[in-house]
Amino acid sequence: MKRSVDFGDDRPRAVSLLEPALRYPGNPILTAAQVNAVWQQPHLQVVTVHNAGVAVCGGETVMLFRSHLRCGISVIGMARSDNGLTDWRIAPRPFLKPAVSGDAIAPGLSLDEIAAMEAGGVEDARINPIDNTFAITYSAYAAGVPNRVRVMLAVSDDLTSATRFGPVMHRDMRNVVLFPQRVGGRYAGLFRPNDELPGDTGGLFQQIRIGYADDYRTGPWEISEKPLMGTHGSPSAFANKIGPCAPPLRTKHGWLNLFHGVRSTMDGNPYVLGVALHDLDRPENVWMSSIPVLFPSQADCRVAESEYVHVPNVVFSCAMLRRPDGVLLIYYGGNDTVMNVAVSHEDVLAELCHRYGQDPNTGRLLYQI
Amino acid sequence: MKRSVDFGDDRPRAVSLLEPALRYPGNPILTAAQVNAVWQQPHLQVVTVHNAGVAVCGGETVMLFRSHLRCGISVIGMARSDNGLTDWRIAPRPFLKPAVSGDAIAPGLSLDEIAAMEAGGVEDARINPIDNTFAITYSAYAAGVPNRVRVMLAVSDDLTSATRFGPVMHRDMRNVVLFPQRVGGRYAGLFRPNDELPGDTGGLFQQIRIGYADDYRTGPWEISEKPLMGTHGSPSAFANKIGPCAPPLRTKHGWLNLFHGVRSTMDGNPYVLGVALHDLDRPENVWMSSIPVLFPSQADCRVAESEYVHVPNVVFSCAMLRRPDGVLLIYYGGNDTVMNVAVSHEDVLAELCHRYGQDPNTGRLLYQI
Amino acid sequence: MKRSVDFGDDRPRAVSLLEPALRYPGNPILTAAQVNAVWQQPHLQVVTVHNAGVAVCGGETVMLFRSHLRCGISVIGMARSDNGLTDWRIAPRPFLKPAVSGDAIAPGLSLDEIAAMEAGGVEDARINPIDNTFAITYSAYAAGVPNRVRVMLAVSDDLTSATRFGPVMHRDMRNVVLFPQRVGGRYAGLFRPNDELPGDTGGLFQQIRIGYADDYRTGPWEISEKPLMGTHGSPSAFANKIGPCAPPLRTKHGWLNLFHGVRSTMDGNPYVLGVALHDLDRPENVWMSSIPVLFPSQADCRVAESEYVHVPNVVFSCAMLRRPDGVLLIYYGGNDTVMNVAVSHEDVLAELCHRYGQDPNTGRLLYQI
Amino acid sequence: MKRSVDFGDDRPRAVSLLEPALRYPGNPILTAAQVNAVWQQPHLQVVTVHNAGVAVCGGETVMLFRSHLRCGISVIGMARSDNGLTDWRIAPRPFLKPAVSGDAIAPGLSLDEIAAMEAGGVEDARINPIDNTFAITYSAYAAGVPNRVRVMLAVSDDLTSATRFGPVMHRDMRNVVLFPQRVGGRYAGLFRPNDELPGDTGGLFQQIRIGYADDYRTGPWEISEKPLMGTHGSPSAFANKIGPCAPPLRTKHGWLNLFHGVRSTMDGNPYVLGVALHDLDRPENVWMSSIPVLFPSQADCRVAESEYVHVPNVVFSCAMLRRPDGVLLIYYGGNDTVMNVAVSHEDVLAELCHRYGQDPNTGRLLYQI
Repeated sequence: MKRSVDFGDDRPRAVSLLEPALRYPGNPILTAAQVNAVWQQPHLQVVTVHNAGVAVCGGETVMLFRSHLRCGISVIGMARSDNGLTDWRIAPRPFLKPAVSGDAIAPGLSLDEIAAMEAGGVEDARINPIDNTFAITYSAYAAGVPNRVRVMLAVSDDLTSATRFGPVMHRDMRNVVLFPQRVGGRYAGLFRPNDELPGDTGGLFQQIRIGYADDYRTGPWEISEKPLMGTHGSPSAFANKIGPCAPPLRTKHGWLNLFHGVRSTMDGNPYVLGVALHDLDRPENVWMSSIPVLFPSQADCRVAESEYVHVPNVVFSCAMLRRPDGVLLIYYGGNDTVMNVAVSHEDVLAELCHRYGQDPNTGRLLYQI
Repeated sequence: MKRSVDFGDDRPRAVSLLEPALRYPGNPILTAAQVNAVWQQPHLQVVTVHNAGVAVCGGETVMLFRSHLRCGISVIGMARSDNGLTDWRIAPRPFLKPAVSGDAIAPGLSLDEIAAMEAGGVEDARINPIDNTFAITYSAYAAGVPNRVRVMLAVSDDLTSATRFGPVMHRDMRNVVLFPQRVGGRYAGLFRPNDELPGDTGGLFQQIRIGYADDYRTGPWEISEKPLMGTHGSPSAFANKIGPCAPPLRTKHGWLNLFHGVRSTMDGNPYVLGVALHDLDRPENVWMSSIPVLFPSQADCRVAESEYVHVPNVVFSCAMLRRPDGVLLIYYGGNDTVMNVAVSHEDVLAELCHRYGQDPNTGRLLYQI
Repeated sequence: MKRSVDFGDDRPRAVSLLEPALRYPGNPILTAAQVNAVWQQPHLQVVTVHNAGVAVCGGETVMLFRSHLRCGISVIGMARSDNGLTDWRIAPRPFLKPAVSGDAIAPGLSLDEIAAMEAGGVEDARINPIDNTFAITYSAYAAGVPNRVRVMLAVSDDLTSATRFGPVMHRDMRNVVLFPQRVGGRYAGLFRPNDELPGDTGGLFQQIRIGYADDYRTGPWEISEKPLMGTHGSPSAFANKIGPCAPPLRTKHGWLNLFHGVRSTMDGNPYVLGVALHDLDRPENVWMSSIPVLFPSQADCRVAESEYVHVPNVVFSCAMLRRPDGVLLIYYGGNDTVMNVAVSHEDVLAELCHRYGQDPNTGRLLYQI
Repeated sequence: MKRSVDFGDDRPRAVSLLEPALRYPGNPILTAAQVNAVWQQPHLQVVTVHNAGVAVCGGETVMLFRSHLRCGISVIGMARSDNGLTDWRIAPRPFLKPAVSGDAIAPGLSLDEIAAMEAGGVEDARINPIDNTFAITYSAYAAGVPNRVRVMLAVSDDLTSATRFGPVMHRDMRNVVLFPQRVGGRYAGLFRPNDELPGDTGGLFQQIRIGYADDYRTGPWEISEKPLMGTHGSPSAFANKIGPCAPPLRTKHGWLNLFHGVRSTMDGNPYVLGVALHDLDRPENVWMSSIPVLFPSQADCRVAESEYVHVPNVVFSCAMLRRPDGVLLIYYGGNDTVMNVAVSHEDVLAELCHRYGQDPNTGRLLYQI
């Protein structure tokens, strides 16, 4: 299976099950230096740009990128582009940052409580289009309590402002993504609990679970006890860590779920991007591709010699966009330092899941090698 | 002692006790990119090519190479070459992969049990020519149980297909090679038990043992209690790990046994290739060369800057071919990443063993330095 | 806010809250080779030049730099320059070194006791201008007792010689800086206790405290129980270590306090320079900028390939000079190996503190990101 | 103080207390490749050449270098040069290797016992000229017992053959050097006991002791309880390890003792060369220079990219030659990989000791910095 894809540059390329994602030759597409040229307030000068959520809104591609401010706290910035690749117009101020007085919050919530939850920074936003609005899920660190992290919700109609709805759950967690519409009459999401904290390590990161709520804004979310996907002891590209990346994309094949996995080696802990497909009506039915979509390489962190590289050997995504023809743009951070993009196609990824799956609960391959 | 050797290119070179193996200038001879050009199925795209078993069959050189699939599981592919060096024709599908329904197995065996043993991947095949057929021994990892590894047997007449005979022993082990004919009326092999598992480390790897069976296909194998060769506390190139590499080769000098050894240093754990000679009639009588055949170097892993190198400082072999004139081709993986070849001669290696041996049980040199 | 600054070279540049410090293009400004060309006595040949205190005296800029002698002990050398940037005239002998007979000490002190305290070397001098003289605070290591370190005081009118006043406190400590004049009728200083020694690790380094004395030369210093500033568990550029750098500078905005902080990462422990502003009358009132003034980079340690780099990823300062127009010269060591300089402006740094502060006791940001 | 020195090339250079040793521009002077070109026996091919003892004998400079054989055991080879710098004529076989039948031993000794002590290799020979003969002290490792090491003695009149006299002491030890003549009527040597073995770490290496014997060939050696020199807890270039290097050289200034020291840092464990001077009549009277003679640099291990470097950041010497004019040639291994030479002068080294000493027992400097 091959699909013609392009970066909007009249240079069609082919993605296939063999090469499911093609890097954009112009990577990186956004860097700290570019943000700093716009965020002309001192507290907004940044040292990284990575792990951006992305959505199309009003004819533009909107990117909500994560940046480490110089103070060490992460915020979520916004950039808009007509083609989703070049000429990013960076919004003059962060789109989301630790909550402060004046921030819009949903009725009945305590801004003080939210602010306390977010005081250590907001990270890794996903833009989940849902009910003709955008539900933005992001990680928030408390101040003063190491590794206390909540996934928070903010809702925006136009991605120019957002209203906070507070923590999705009162539990240490990261990487929550929502399905773009109700499933079986209820809202649905994917969750990566941080499990029990052994001291202060930040959890185990070994399961993705599904949850449902009657109202995605208020919850409560009922999280499945049974993991939807997990890591396992066998050889696998996702053997040691796993978690959601981009919000599930509705395709004719089912929900496309771009996730990340880590396989520890004697030479590092490479992060790869994986993909799973969920049944449209019963997302518990999941076809998890055993084959990663992208492996990290030096091409994923093109920086000057004088610049810092935060975490070597990492590709990490919070966003995948679908064009009407099924072409997918995978936005991903390289080494927690810069933003890149790769192109793929839904037919290819769905096919990976259907034909080359692994049992999401045991890790066993579901096809004959 | 010098012997003229060549790579079939009309450029005779000399190997000697001083330089017992010469690297092929065209190394590497097989890479992941070459395999990927042939294995056009997504689940068969690979990230490494290394540790190949090799045999001559039907006028061709047949290589059974190990590759990490993208999913993280290893399979065993096949490539054929007229000259054993260049123009490798890679078979369109793996030769051995975790067993699945339809795979040929010997009567009386449970395919399900074998499949369970192999579900985590098959690795490091040796092609043992025996009784006018090929006994292929390979390591198989279970799924879900870290480091549960069995050495499995498959038999093939023509190296186009194979029939499985299941685990050689029900014990964690790697690196089993078989003698090409009966010894003293029984079949014989070399074994590297993984010893007791301290937690989950994968064993100690400090001994090579010999075993016998009336039927190499069905066993049972009786493994000697006494190690045939071992590591020792003294300074040695094999001081910290040891195990068989290529199947023993019958020569006029005795059985040639190419093995590997590791000497831990403050700067790494270099793997070298060593050689031992076993009495044709009583292989317990062993002359183990204290001198390695090959040390690792940067020339053993020529890759592009953007490519991964799995394990630095490693040469590892699963195959050594003998030409009628006694010339030996040593096929070896470099850094668990690419396949290389070096040339040697049986007279030279045998001489190394006879003249420059070390006591296989104590490590003491058997010659006067 | 922008301020025009220059390096005295008629090339005005702008510093701002976005880029509060600009590196001198001619860095490094002093190296071991330069010192060795002057210190023509064997025991004075050095292997590093770093962490210099600096003051203006008699129309010259005087630098008291730290150097590791070849014997491993640190001494404090002096260099003078007309412009504070180039053409450093290195004094032929160290200005401060472990005390010996003949050194000037204040009445009533025991030179033997002081000599014992300093026998392991003197390090990281600060030149604190006070009462029309210079109070030099420096760290002194005892010989024979690992990590026994005292901060010592020496006083000099002209920076050509100094009189010792012994240990500021009888407690393991580093990085003591004094305010240039009395505050509330008493002398004041900033202290970084080394806390309790867990075995021999050298302390925790997590707090800056303020202390007062009626006589800065004799003490006794009363150190606040309550930390003035501290590290915290939240994300921050100063999350893991903190301590004073340059002596507080009096500005119209308050006391400018250049300090250092460390944030441990999975890829190293970068030292950054931070800044705080203290109320002129009540320095307990502190505005601590959450934004560092300078991050380490490769440009901070330009050495030849054959030269040693002592500690990668470090910028560390003991001095900041103020010109009448408020321009600041920040003298800082790069990687504990060479001396560099950067330029800033008091209005910019004060503004950083006022507008972009963090609670010095909790680490919480005091502004809306 | 300056002294004119040269490498016999009519290019006089100056050494001084500032630069007590000058590297030979043609370093390295001997490499593994050169030895391999001569040692045409397989068991004698080597992977390193370092830590050579050197003496003048019969108008030639004789070097007894250490090499790792490929088998991992070290032997001691010989090379001769007319000028001590170039055109080394490597003897066709090792001069010393683990003892075997036929080796000359002194009457009354058991060759079997000596052979057992040396079976793991012989290392780091010193050529001690004494009583018109050469007493060669070298380290010998037992086989099978990790880190069991004895210093052995062999005596040679002409450095073409030697007679073994067995272990200097029955105690784990390295780096024994002998004084070239009797002192106070008895023979004298410097010893570096390995102390108690904590498990298998090889000892502490923190003291140099002096010993006396009526017969240097038979002992028994009476070793002082009191260390002659030691490491200490204070900052020092020899703070963490210490041991003799070259045999003491008689000069008009006293016995010149070239030793090595290690100062552990957060960036490695650099080995430096130090020097001490001992009273001719009472060598317990020692002036230990606090200033090293040579620090390691990249210039000390010039190897091709494909070659191994055994231990980075090391200069180590076993030999220092004196010309009648007091010029000293310091032969030293670089990174345990190649042999280098530097030039110095006895007046300069003696002056270092006299003027810039440290108390050998406490580490305290004996001069005013």
